[in-house]
Amino acid sequence: MRQRHALIPTLRETPSDAEAASHQLLLRAGFIRQLAAGIYTYLPLGRKVLRKLEAIVREEMDHTQAQEILMPAMQPAELWHESGRHSVYGPELIRFQDRNSREFTLGPTHEEVVTSLIRDEINSYRKLPVIVYQIQSKFRDERRPRFGLLRGREFVMKDAYSFDTSWEGVDQAYQAMYSAYHRIFDRCGLKFRAVEADAGAIGGEGGTHEFMALTDIGEDTIVTCESCGYAANLERAVSRMPAEGFNGSDPLNHLDRLDIERIATPHMKTIDQLVHFLNVSADQLIKTLIYIADGQPVAVCVRGDHEVNETKLKNFLNADSLELADADTVARATGAPSGYIGPMQLSIALYVDQEAARMDSAITGANLTGFHLRHVRPGRDFTLEHTADLRNVEEGDLCIHCESSLKLTRGIEIGHIFKLGTKYSEPLKASFVDAEGKEQPILMGCYGIGISRLLSAVVEQSHDAFGIVWPFSISPFHVHIVPVSVQDMTQMQLAESLYAQLGQLGADVLLDDREERPGVKLKDADLIGIPIRIVVGKKAGEGLIEWKERGEAEVLVLTSEEAIELITLKLRGAVN
Amino acid sequence: MRQRHALIPTLRETPSDAEAASHQLLLRAGFIRQLAAGIYTYLPLGRKVLRKLEAIVREEMDHTQAQEILMPAMQPAELWHESGRHSVYGPELIRFQDRNSREFTLGPTHEEVVTSLIRDEINSYRKLPVIVYQIQSKFRDERRPRFGLLRGREFVMKDAYSFDTSWEGVDQAYQAMYSAYHRIFDRCGLKFRAVEADAGAIGGEGGTHEFMALTDIGEDTIVTCESCGYAANLERAVSRMPAEGFNGSDPLNHLDRLDIERIATPHMKTIDQLVHFLNVSADQLIKTLIYIADGQPVAVCVRGDHEVNETKLKNFLNADSLELADADTVARATGAPSGYIGPMQLSIALYVDQEAARMDSAITGANLTGFHLRHVRPGRDFTLEHTADLRNVEEGDLCIHCESSLKLTRGIEIGHIFKLGTKYSEPLKASFVDAEGKEQPILMGCYGIGISRLLSAVVEQSHDAFGIVWPFSISPFHVHIVPVSVQDMTQMQLAESLYAQLGQLGADVLLDDREERPGVKLKDADLIGIPIRIVVGKKAGEGLIEWKERGEAEVLVLTSEEAIELITLKLRGAVN
Repeated sequence: MRQRHALIPTLRETPSDAEAASHQLLLRAGFIRQLAAGIYTYLPLGRKVLRKLEAIVREEMDHTQAQEILMPAMQPAELWHESGRHSVYGPELIRFQDRNSREFTLGPTHEEVVTSLIRDEINSYRKLPVIVYQIQSKFRDERRPRFGLLRGREFVMKDAYSFDTSWEGVDQAYQAMYSAYHRIFDRCGLKFRAVEADAGAIGGEGGTHEFMALTDIGEDTIVTCESCGYAANLERAVSRMPAEGFNGSDPLNHLDRLDIERIATPHMKTIDQLVHFLNVSADQLIKTLIYIADGQPVAVCVRGDHEVNETKLKNFLNADSLELADADTVARATGAPSGYIGPMQLSIALYVDQEAARMDSAITGANLTGFHLRHVRPGRDFTLEHTADLRNVEEGDLCIHCESSLKLTRGIEIGHIFKLGTKYSEPLKASFVDAEGKEQPILMGCYGIGISRLLSAVVEQSHDAFGIVWPFSISPFHVHIVPVSVQDMTQMQLAESLYAQLGQLGADVLLDDREERPGVKLKDADLIGIPIRIVVGKKAGEGLIEWKERGEAEVLVLTSEEAIELITLKLRGAVN
Repeated sequence: MRQRHALIPTLRETPSDAEAASHQLLLRAGFIRQLAAGIYTYLPLGRKVLRKLEAIVREEMDHTQAQEILMPAMQPAELWHESGRHSVYGPELIRFQDRNSREFTLGPTHEEVVTSLIRDEINSYRKLPVIVYQIQSKFRDERRPRFGLLRGREFVMKDAYSFDTSWEGVDQAYQAMYSAYHRIFDRCGLKFRAVEADAGAIGGEGGTHEFMALTDIGEDTIVTCESCGYAANLERAVSRMPAEGFNGSDPLNHLDRLDIERIATPHMKTIDQLVHFLNVSADQLIKTLIYIADGQPVAVCVRGDHEVNETKLKNFLNADSLELADADTVARATGAPSGYIGPMQLSIALYVDQEAARMDSAITGANLTGFHLRHVRPGRDFTLEHTADLRNVEEGDLCIHCESSLKLTRGIEIGHIFKLGTKYSEPLKASFVDAEGKEQPILMGCYGIGISRLLSAVVEQSHDAFGIVWPFSISPFHVHIVPVSVQDMTQMQLAESLYAQLGQLGADVLLDDREERPGVKLKDADLIGIPIRIVVGKKAGEGLIEWKERGEAEVLVLTSEEAIELITLKLRGAVN
């Protein structure tokens, strides 16, 4: 492609509303433009990367024998009622009516559509297993779209669905996808980790893994054990309880026989404030939070130095919805405002984290404005009937498998695979007749990759102060030819000749034929980040060019033949 | 692909609700399935054809230097307000609100989005010309979705947009697209015609051509001249007026001096009824219709044997909306019901087709229930102030260019190209600064291809009593290998060996490894319509196979080596 008339609008300034480095760079280098919050146009460079990502995903999907299909974005709302998700999905699901007032949704995912398809087309074990996939724009009306392509409202996804007669079959399909995902993300040049995860709104009774690109700005937290390889999403991660009898910073345990004592704590509403005011450590406190679970208020206790894990709580309660209670509800349920709530004498159900439950004595709220209680003893002073792991793992907690210290890192979810089992096939009645003539629900799995998000994840991991550093495999172009002066006939002849020859080799080449100053051209080249840059300058008359790889400092002076040979090798994958 | 676990659900029965042959065959052969009215899932075979069509379109677009981008389907309604199309587009435009009550539309086309993009990114003549294109799902809430993919509500389209500084530039871009479209449809194996057309809702001040696939079930009528090559959509087509003085079947012209005479015509409300009752020919009558144009009633006269062309009328009136008036409006405007309306003494504006205007004498309605008038003379008895070509061309009319007889045929619109000029750049303020430093509106063109519709158009043109007959270039597979018995080791060995060898040659091969009777397999093979069928049967032991091309009766017995050689030639495009 010739750059003069290419739509590559680079920007000198960093757009003020772009927080993430990938968002800034994709805008500045002219890969994407925003049309509305969380909704982007892919300009020629962005579209090219997207197509290369799609090609890699397609190859690896075809390799697993998955069959490509294309389902509609417009989905009849009835299907979502059948699966029960119409009410559960909330405002992220875009809904509208057609001209005949029939209700539709814009597909954020396609479990309902694909299950109804298979229900209608397959009814014998002889036609199974089947895996189908598609690459398509999806819609999710995010509350807070941000970070450019990382959290958008319209995005490109690969979604695959497997249909099996047995759990062994599901395991095989899952394993095939697990391996394919590793190959895909490897080929994209990503640093990533497969982690155990929570199934969330997709649901299902089997296992589930998230694939996380490791970056600083990731919205997700990953818990990893360096010694045994354990890795899980924070929502899902568990740690080992310390040995019995440990009680925060109070090893002497002299408080357990003391009576409860009320202490005035005016304006002391946070753990931090209490820690300073009472001169204790946070692990001597219990904090109590009020949630609304499926419309009912419940109380939850964790140790003062811990955080409630809402996913664990929601799963333990088997609740469809869970949110922190507002001030009114808190006051009505406990008689006191937030900051002074405690677990004693509550009229609502109480759920206690297992480590809070093991404390010998704790400081808690008094359910009375301006007061806390000291020497409160779990089990003696409040019920431990509902006790479970309800907290987030913290940095330094012990690995559940090997007792090493756990580490917390951040990541971007780039893929997610689920063993669904019968979660959709049962309500939608997708069944097959087995070899004995018995009707059984089909067992499913589903497997997603956020393709447009990959674009951002790669840039997030692979950039420097000057711009993007594309991996060769997914770069919009392989080679950027930059003649120093387009007025110089000798330079332009060599540049055009290289452009033609490399094109015939199958290389994607961008030729900067713009009448710009060399400094502007080289700045743009760094910003765009094509892996090989060939500057054709003063030595063009001798057939020499300057060879520089993006991300490397070294500049080589090569003959044009040497350059062509090197690129031939790169294209063959012989050199990295 | 192995057919045993492929999702190719063929049907024996013709689906009752499918009218068009292409719709029936695409359903029966397992290419598509309906999810809701006008909304389809592309199964693996359908997706494969779609991908081949997309590849051809992409190659030819890239060849014109158009740059691929991807715009969102979700479009802010404000852009449609800016262009003025939000109110004009009507219920075909799908509208919805996001979670913050901001209005959006689902893109049926992208003039607004692309014009706003270019407005923001290009402002100098130095960056022009630019052509961009995308391949994407579009949404149009059709009143009557039908014929499968021919008139759907969600469909795959290629839309391209050109941006130029001069009309010469627009002409060049238009010509490049015109040529590219010819190459694309040729490569798809289509019989088609480029015809002059009306710009419709897309609008624009330049020319416009439709590309029509010629089929019996086409929803459009095309007017063609076999001698000079003139071709136009019926909406747009014009014909030459016969020589002066001709007046239907009354060459003697003795009626022109007679006075108007009232005749009782009880219950005679149609042209047919009047022709029989009065024993005259239809070209001696004038029919008068009442329309509502932008809210105002207007009357239109055409000769009794002619039909009003609503596109010509709408353009002549320069109206945004035009529809036939309801009975109440007709009665209020004329004092009589439909069937008895005439052009005399009307209180509303009257528009007369040029051939009706030239009649010496005519029979018209009397604007009185049960009566018509005889010897009405245009110009004498009613005004000819507004006279124009307002009728449809009829079979046998004379060509405007060469006076040969015109023919009417039916067609499916598969592509449409427009010179838009400043229709969008002016309201959306997309301008550039020219070489003299003067600001001017950018001149645009737009160019669409209904890619999913191509699939149906090809099948409509290319099928027989047994199923589809795919052109080699876009067939889901090149070769269908059908072993007669999968139990026969010799047959299966040869079939598998061919499958592997052909795969290595780059051929797409479907291997029917199903345990079905040979009759079932061959019926399915005919239905699916892959161009080359290789049956591996009793002679497998001698290395012989049966070679049959779809659409040909001949069956050849070839060695497997000969078969491979033939396919190699076909893949090279050396043999057709």
